[in-house]
Amino acid sequence: MSLQGLSFIGSSRGAAGGASFHAVNPATGESLDPPFHSASASDAEAAAAAAAAAFPIYSQTSGAERATFLRTIASEIEALGQTLTDRAVAESGLPEPRIKGETARTCGQLRLFATLIEEGSWVDARIDHADPARTPAPKPDTRSMLRPIGPVVVFGASNFPLAFSVAGGDTASALAAGCPVIVKAHSAHPGTSELVAAAVRRAVAQCGLPDGTFSALFDNQRAAAMTLVTHHAVRGVGFTGSRSGGRALMDAAAARPEPIPVYAEMSSVNPVFLLRDALTSRGPALATGLHASVTLGSGQFCTNPGLVLFDASADATPFLSELSRLFSTSAAGTMLTAGICKAYQSGTSTLAANPAVTSLASAAAAIGTRGAPALFQTSAAQLLADPSLTEEVFGPATLLVACSSIDEMLKVTNALEGQLTATIHGTEADFASAAPLLAAAERRAGRLVCNGFPTGVEVCQSIVHGGPYPATSDGRSTSVGTAAILRWVRPVCWQDMPDSLLPHALRNANPLGIQRLVNSSFTR
Amino acid sequence: MSLQGLSFIGSSRGAAGGASFHAVNPATGESLDPPFHSASASDAEAAAAAAAAAFPIYSQTSGAERATFLRTIASEIEALGQTLTDRAVAESGLPEPRIKGETARTCGQLRLFATLIEEGSWVDARIDHADPARTPAPKPDTRSMLRPIGPVVVFGASNFPLAFSVAGGDTASALAAGCPVIVKAHSAHPGTSELVAAAVRRAVAQCGLPDGTFSALFDNQRAAAMTLVTHHAVRGVGFTGSRSGGRALMDAAAARPEPIPVYAEMSSVNPVFLLRDALTSRGPALATGLHASVTLGSGQFCTNPGLVLFDASADATPFLSELSRLFSTSAAGTMLTAGICKAYQSGTSTLAANPAVTSLASAAAAIGTRGAPALFQTSAAQLLADPSLTEEVFGPATLLVACSSIDEMLKVTNALEGQLTATIHGTEADFASAAPLLAAAERRAGRLVCNGFPTGVEVCQSIVHGGPYPATSDGRSTSVGTAAILRWVRPVCWQDMPDSLLPHALRNANPLGIQRLVNSSFTR
Repeated sequence: MSLQGLSFIGSSRGAAGGASFHAVNPATGESLDPPFHSASASDAEAAAAAAAAAFPIYSQTSGAERATFLRTIASEIEALGQTLTDRAVAESGLPEPRIKGETARTCGQLRLFATLIEEGSWVDARIDHADPARTPAPKPDTRSMLRPIGPVVVFGASNFPLAFSVAGGDTASALAAGCPVIVKAHSAHPGTSELVAAAVRRAVAQCGLPDGTFSALFDNQRAAAMTLVTHHAVRGVGFTGSRSGGRALMDAAAARPEPIPVYAEMSSVNPVFLLRDALTSRGPALATGLHASVTLGSGQFCTNPGLVLFDASADATPFLSELSRLFSTSAAGTMLTAGICKAYQSGTSTLAANPAVTSLASAAAAIGTRGAPALFQTSAAQLLADPSLTEEVFGPATLLVACSSIDEMLKVTNALEGQLTATIHGTEADFASAAPLLAAAERRAGRLVCNGFPTGVEVCQSIVHGGPYPATSDGRSTSVGTAAILRWVRPVCWQDMPDSLLPHALRNANPLGIQRLVNSSFTR
Repeated sequence: MSLQGLSFIGSSRGAAGGASFHAVNPATGESLDPPFHSASASDAEAAAAAAAAAFPIYSQTSGAERATFLRTIASEIEALGQTLTDRAVAESGLPEPRIKGETARTCGQLRLFATLIEEGSWVDARIDHADPARTPAPKPDTRSMLRPIGPVVVFGASNFPLAFSVAGGDTASALAAGCPVIVKAHSAHPGTSELVAAAVRRAVAQCGLPDGTFSALFDNQRAAAMTLVTHHAVRGVGFTGSRSGGRALMDAAAARPEPIPVYAEMSSVNPVFLLRDALTSRGPALATGLHASVTLGSGQFCTNPGLVLFDASADATPFLSELSRLFSTSAAGTMLTAGICKAYQSGTSTLAANPAVTSLASAAAAIGTRGAPALFQTSAAQLLADPSLTEEVFGPATLLVACSSIDEMLKVTNALEGQLTATIHGTEADFASAAPLLAAAERRAGRLVCNGFPTGVEVCQSIVHGGPYPATSDGRSTSVGTAAILRWVRPVCWQDMPDSLLPHALRNANPLGIQRLVNSSFTR
C-alpha cells in the first residue's frame, strides 16, 4: 500500500489541511515521504464521537468475538511483512532484527490478550446467592464482574514503534477489555503507524465491528492530543514517554469536569544493587551483563539500568576495570530521534560537569544522532546530598554509586523516587542480610529482579511493568502482561436480576465455563 | 471511659491548644461535653510520620496477624456497649436500633475482612515458571502479588457515625490490606469517634503492632485535613461526603508533587425506572416500597432514590395517589446536623420554586433540624432542558419524572451523570424491550437493582458501591464489600528470586494454601 499521510477517523480519512511534517531517518538525516497532515481539533472531536457511538455496541461483544478481532489484527500486521520492517527501520534507526522481534512481540501480545478474553475468567465474576430467610433483613442475590470504562486514548511511544504504539500493549489491553481506542501516533514514526493503523482498520471491517472502534490521528502539534484527553467521551488514557509529557496529561485529565484515569509510564533509573560477595566473586561477569543491559538498543528502554549501587567494601577493582574497558570501547549507536540524542548529550554533559561525579569512560563524542555510551561514578554520600544525580538520563549511560555498606544502600534506596524495577545481585551469603534492602526496594519499585538485568520485560500473566510515581502516574497497575487489561475496567453489580438479563459471565448455568467466586468459593 | 477531646497520634494524645468545638445533639440542640480540640498541622505531621514509620513493619505482617487485629478491634467496639450507643444516638439523632444495627455492621465488616485476609487468595498471586530452554531468549521465573500502597487517610462520614467513620469500611479495608490508617474524625460525632478510636488503639496495643499503625485526629477546621492529604508519606485517601468536599481533596491530591489516589464517594440520585406493566399491575405496592426507601433514615443515605422515572403511558394513578398520600402523612424526621437540614430545606425550596416542577406532597414545614419528606414531579422533556433537576438533594425528597415511553427513559439515562445505583421495576413483559435501557444504566452506574430498592447495601464479596464520577471520584472500585481492599494495593513482581526471599504467598510450596494462577492455570 502507498502511504497517504492522513489520519484515520473510523473508516474515514482526515483532511490534508493541517500542519504537515515528515518522518526523518535518524541514521541518515534523510526526510521520508509522504508528508503527514496533523489532525485538526475537529478531526479529534469526530474520532471521539465515533468512539462514543461504538462503545455501547463494542462493549457488548463477547470475549470470543474480541479475541477473533485481536487475532485478525495480528495476522494483518504480519501480512505487512518486509514493507513494515523497512519503514520502521528507516523511521527509528533500530536494527532490522530488533524491529522483527518487536513485530513478533506486538502480535504475541495481541494473541495473549485474545487467549485471556476467550477463556474469560479475568472478569472476576463473583456471585452471592440470595437468602430470603435471613434476619433481620433478607439477603438479596448480588453478582459482579468487571466491565469496560469507555473510549480510551493511547499515545504511541517513541522507543517502541510497534510494541507500544498503534497496536501495542495499551491498544491491545484496551480493545481486549471492550474499550474503543483512539491512537495519537508518535510523530517520529508516522509511516509505521499508518501501516499498522490500516491493518487494524482492515480487522475492524473484517470482523464487522462498529466504525468508531478504532481511530488513529497524526499530530506533531499538541492540539489534537489535548482535545482528546479533555473530551467528555474519553474515559481513560495510556501514555509512554517523558515525565513532563506524562504529567501534562495527568494534570489535564485531573482538571476535567469529570476526571479520568491516566496511565502514564514516564521515567525510571532502575537501580541495580551489587552486594559484596557477588561483586568480589564475579566482578567481570557482572560488568559484562551490566554493560550489555545499559547499551541494549542504545539505552533507549524504560528499564535501562541508570543507577548502580555497589558495595565498595568488596574488591570492586575487577568489576570496575572491566566495565570501564567495555564502555571505553563501545561504539556510539544511532538514537531514535535528533531530539532524544540532544537530550542525552545534555544529560551526560551535566553529569560530567558535576564536581561530585567522575567520568570513568565515554566513547568518542557523538556525531549527528549517534549517542556514545558513558559511565560515571559518585558516592552514596554525594548522591544523597544532590538528588539531581538520581534523575533519568535517557540513553546508554549509567552512574555507579560507591556505598560503604549494605546499610548505606538502604539509605539511598529510601531516598529514591518510584521506580519500574530494582535489581539485586548477591550470593546466599549476601542475602542473609539483604531482607531490609529487598523490603525497601519493594516499596519503591514494581518489579524486583534477582541476579539478572531489568531490560527485557517478559510478557506474561505475572509480569509487572509499573511502579510508584514518577515511574508511572499510577503504581496500582501494570502496562505489560495480561493484568494490563485491569486498567480499563470497573466493577458492576447486578442485584436480584433475572437470569436472562444478566451478562453471560454471571448466569446460573455458567455458560462461559469460567472460574467464579460463588458464595465465597472459587468454582467453575 | 471519660472522653478527653484530644486527638490520637499513635499512642500519644494531641495537645489541648487548638480551636475547640462541641458536638451538638441535633434532636435537642444541646451542646455535648467535652470540648474537642482541633489537631494542629504539627499533630497531623506527627501522625503522618508515625504512619510512615509503621508501614515497613505493618506491611510485612501476615494476613493471619492482621485478621487477629481486625477481630480484636471488633471485640473492643462491642465491649463499649451502651456507652457507645448512647453517645452515637445523642450526636447523630439516629434512633437506637439504627445505631445498634450500624455497630453490628461495623463489627461484621471488620470480621469479613479478617476472614478474607486469613484465607489469603485475594492477593491475586500469579506464578510463571522459568523456561531456560526457550528461544530466542530464556524465560525468567516471574511471580506477582498485590502489596499495600502505604499510609492511608480516611475521612469519617457524617451519615454513618460507625460504619463509615473511625473503624468503618475504609479503615477496615486499608488495615486489612496492610496500610496504616490516619482517620480525620467527622466533627458531627467526635465523642463516638473518640470511643471507637480508643478501642482501635487498645487493639493496636494488644496485638503488639507498631505505634503509628493507627491515629485519629479531631479537626473542625481544614488545616489538619489538608496537611494530611498533601503529606509526602500519605499514599491514599478515602472519603465519603459532599461533592465539593470530595473534589477539593481530589484536586489537592492531583496537584501533589507525587499525585495519590483519592477514593471519594460523593453524590448520586440513584435513578429508579418504573416500567409500564409493573406500574400498571402493582402501583400501590411500588408506592409503599419507594416511600419507605426515600424516607429511611430521613433520606440520609448515598443510595437514596432521588429520581424516579415512570412510564406515563401506563395507568399511573393508583401509584401516584398512594405515593402522594404516604408523603403527605409522613412525619418530619431529625436530620444529622443543622447544616444538613438547612441544605435540605434549601434544595427542596429550589425544586418547589422551579416552574417546571410540581409539588405533589410535602409534610408540615421543618422545625429546627427536622426535615419533612417531599415529593415532586416533572417531565422528561423538562428534565432534559434543565440538568439542575438531576442534582442530589440530600434528604427525604424525590423527584418523579413522567416519561412518554421506555425510549424517553433511555434518553434521560444517557443524559445523567454517574450514579451509585440504578433500579428497574418491571415484569417479564416489560423486560422484553428493556435491554437497551439496562445497558445504558450499566454505563452510568455501579449497581443495577431489579424489582427492589437501592437503600440497604449488602456487605459481601460481590457488592459494588461505586460508580462513574461524580457518584465517586473513581468508578474503578467499590467502597463496600471485600473488593474494597483492592483500592489500597498495587502489584509487585519478583523475577528469578530465590524461594526463601519471596513472600510466603509466592513460595513454591504454597505454604498459605491459597489459590494462585500458576502457568495460566488456577491452582491451590
